[in-house]
Amino acid sequence: MQNTNYADDSLALHTDLYQINMVEAYWADGMHERKAVFELFFRKLPFGNGYAIFAGLERVLEYLRNFKFSESDLAYLKEVGYKEDFLDYLKSIKFTGAVHSVVEGELVFQNEPLIRIESTLAEAQLIETALLNIVNYQTLIATKASRIKQIVKDDRVMEFGTRRAQEMDAAIWGSRAAFIGGLEATSNVRAGKLFGIPVAGTHAHSMVQAYKDEYEAFHAYAKRHRKCVFLVDTYDTLKSGLPIAIQVAKELGDQIDFQGIRLDSGDIAFLSKEARKMLDEAGFPDAEIVVSNDLDEYTILNLKAQGAQVDSWGIGTKLITAYDQPALGAVYKIVAIENEEGQMEDTIKISGNAEKVTTPGLKKVYRIIDRENGKSEGDYITMVDEDPESEERLKMFHPVHTFVSKFVTNFDAVNIHTQVVKDGEITYEYPSVQEIQDYSKKSLDLLWDEYKRSLNPEEYPVDLSQKCWDNKMRNIQEVRDSIQSFSKR
Amino acid sequence: MQNTNYADDSLALHTDLYQINMVEAYWADGMHERKAVFELFFRKLPFGNGYAIFAGLERVLEYLRNFKFSESDLAYLKEVGYKEDFLDYLKSIKFTGAVHSVVEGELVFQNEPLIRIESTLAEAQLIETALLNIVNYQTLIATKASRIKQIVKDDRVMEFGTRRAQEMDAAIWGSRAAFIGGLEATSNVRAGKLFGIPVAGTHAHSMVQAYKDEYEAFHAYAKRHRKCVFLVDTYDTLKSGLPIAIQVAKELGDQIDFQGIRLDSGDIAFLSKEARKMLDEAGFPDAEIVVSNDLDEYTILNLKAQGAQVDSWGIGTKLITAYDQPALGAVYKIVAIENEEGQMEDTIKISGNAEKVTTPGLKKVYRIIDRENGKSEGDYITMVDEDPESEERLKMFHPVHTFVSKFVTNFDAVNIHTQVVKDGEITYEYPSVQEIQDYSKKSLDLLWDEYKRSLNPEEYPVDLSQKCWDNKMRNIQEVRDSIQSFSKR
Repeated sequence: MQNTNYADDSLALHTDLYQINMVEAYWADGMHERKAVFELFFRKLPFGNGYAIFAGLERVLEYLRNFKFSESDLAYLKEVGYKEDFLDYLKSIKFTGAVHSVVEGELVFQNEPLIRIESTLAEAQLIETALLNIVNYQTLIATKASRIKQIVKDDRVMEFGTRRAQEMDAAIWGSRAAFIGGLEATSNVRAGKLFGIPVAGTHAHSMVQAYKDEYEAFHAYAKRHRKCVFLVDTYDTLKSGLPIAIQVAKELGDQIDFQGIRLDSGDIAFLSKEARKMLDEAGFPDAEIVVSNDLDEYTILNLKAQGAQVDSWGIGTKLITAYDQPALGAVYKIVAIENEEGQMEDTIKISGNAEKVTTPGLKKVYRIIDRENGKSEGDYITMVDEDPESEERLKMFHPVHTFVSKFVTNFDAVNIHTQVVKDGEITYEYPSVQEIQDYSKKSLDLLWDEYKRSLNPEEYPVDLSQKCWDNKMRNIQEVRDSIQSFSKR
Repeated sequence: MQNTNYADDSLALHTDLYQINMVEAYWADGMHERKAVFELFFRKLPFGNGYAIFAGLERVLEYLRNFKFSESDLAYLKEVGYKEDFLDYLKSIKFTGAVHSVVEGELVFQNEPLIRIESTLAEAQLIETALLNIVNYQTLIATKASRIKQIVKDDRVMEFGTRRAQEMDAAIWGSRAAFIGGLEATSNVRAGKLFGIPVAGTHAHSMVQAYKDEYEAFHAYAKRHRKCVFLVDTYDTLKSGLPIAIQVAKELGDQIDFQGIRLDSGDIAFLSKEARKMLDEAGFPDAEIVVSNDLDEYTILNLKAQGAQVDSWGIGTKLITAYDQPALGAVYKIVAIENEEGQMEDTIKISGNAEKVTTPGLKKVYRIIDRENGKSEGDYITMVDEDPESEERLKMFHPVHTFVSKFVTNFDAVNIHTQVVKDGEITYEYPSVQEIQDYSKKSLDLLWDEYKRSLNPEEYPVDLSQKCWDNKMRNIQEVRDSIQSFSKR
């Protein structure tokens, strides 16, 4: 850490070494300024969920805006062994391209481009790692939060995960993503400050221990805080914490706003029902029961099935780390590049794993909305020059099981991409996190419930247009032919 | 994000709101400057491993050094509703206490204090969340890396996880933790710059796609890079990538240092064996085979069992997210506090879950080393005034199954804590990451192999001294008595 305090630390080096090595080769070969198109997408929805919620765009755009190798970055690269001529070139690089992206809070699905980067080959290559780092995590957490929100419905849910987050950025950006996914508040004060998310929290066990005694601790807390939620499980929930909380609330009467109690251990189903009874009998029917303790959508569903009396849920570890699937596998693939004659040519990556074959060319994604019921029929990926909006009747077919198909009529085709960067300048006005959350909730209304259930949802159709599919097949064949011709040499 | 660009953003707000609420209550009540002692520890080793590797101390110490509420922090807190008088107090806070900690790279175990904070109650409370956030993640990743290193033995292992890391801090601090745990290099250039970790990487599929052709791409790469590892699975590993890599290596001969090939998909066991044969037959017996693709200690063990021919492993997602257990549950508990008379008194937290009952009082941790064989007999937790070094014969007994016990003689008792902060000033000189890694490797030699195996290791003894155990029982009894006396009221 003697070295971490570079005044000019930048994120330009927040990339994999191979990106810089490739750019050096492109530059030495005169390829670096060829136009290139990359798409960012994931192949599989996380958590077995029926949709994902996109997040990370603001962070991506700020990263692109500030993209520049600093003096200390270049000095370090020199130390690693890069030569002056190449470093001079790197010094001049900034992001000059165009970005089309879905907006934050948007519902997104497997195999559709979420972000499309059109820029020079060098620029587009250098930014890959950071873009994936940002979008993979934030989209994962927004999606996890949305799953939890689907289960709790109108109960309040708060993000309490900072202490178990994977370092500090995860704590604050995860908190923001969780809010986008539908949560009501966070305990992380810095996230509150930076992003305008409501903050929540009262006191911990250590306060009770510091006073040795719940009676003293609750009174001390109430002296300075009108709104009181007392934590009742430091010593013994039913024999000590709860009766003392009730006693203090009665003693203080109107001097405080006794909002309820929090349970953080033990048998939540049993204790919450007992607590509800005791609070009701004591004349506090409006006092809420807040619970926390390694919760996620599965435990919440079970607690609800057991009749747990909970008004508010504090979710930590399982949300902020996306515990049951801590990584989204989004990738960033080149789909077209300028050739020597200045024409754009499609590119493809073949793979031993069939689902890893990329879909070549510049594409658009349309959400096909039935005009009668306002629900989405699926997403429809086209080549960039197609206009499904102008068609009367759309054939949608499964991109793997192509015989699974349907015809759609009387639809709106909504392009889900927005241009957010033009010639390197951000052309997009950031909405507030509340606006993003609202947008996301509204977007969820487009989906039939079958796609939204947390267990075994229906597969939402993400289909290729005929033209897109034909183009992919042609590209695959071309690669096959060229491999054959090599093998014959 | 319109708000994230505070020039004076600090980490003081990187805490849970309840910490600030409690401090407000302490302050209003005149409790805030009481001396308090908190300990940071975890209850359960991660991944079913037999040990953990501590990491995060430098980041913790820099956080403490810089702990201060900035103008914009205070302005935000005012917005949240805190009053001026309290904010004036917060403005003055910095960390003035003492810190004893194990050093980074140290082997650590369940239920032993890793860090002990002695400070004012207010200061110690405010820093809890950030300390846990840092230590939980970094210790988790160092431990995961060490597990992987135990399996690969002398093969080279590189950390390739940035794109799947949980946001940016996880990428760089995870990379550092992985190095501490025994890895050889990282792909993250910024981590290389900030921490002095060796960086590694060559090229990606996109380069092959940009040239449309492996032959052109490999030649282009070799023009500017003497050391060449060619990625061979963009189109077809055995028919295209490998034969072309070999062809290019032959054509270029001594103009390059052909170090080998990388496989990133497909059946690694089969492909690596075929690749080995082809490389050997082509006259490149020293060319190495690098593999990557969702690897972890389990897949590596299986690949080795299948006779995979791999020299170097690139580990991404599964390491950087600690995929199979993405959170370490370290906690931070108050163990003593100054009373009104200025005397320190022990504190305890009882819980419905027996293993969550804390061990009260200021404690030390000794590693008990057998003088004859140099191996560790276990860790021995004492009250701060005990000196096991002066004893001839030590009774070590299990803290739960107390009848499981042994007597140890002819031992060295090594205090594993170092004072790293005194009166708020850092008194510790940071070692380099290489020194930390070396220290960690040496520490591992203290353990019998039975504790180091990745599956079902023996449980390493972490025992309480008789005095420590008696003190805990006395505290439990006192709490029980006071609950009874409340119930009788």
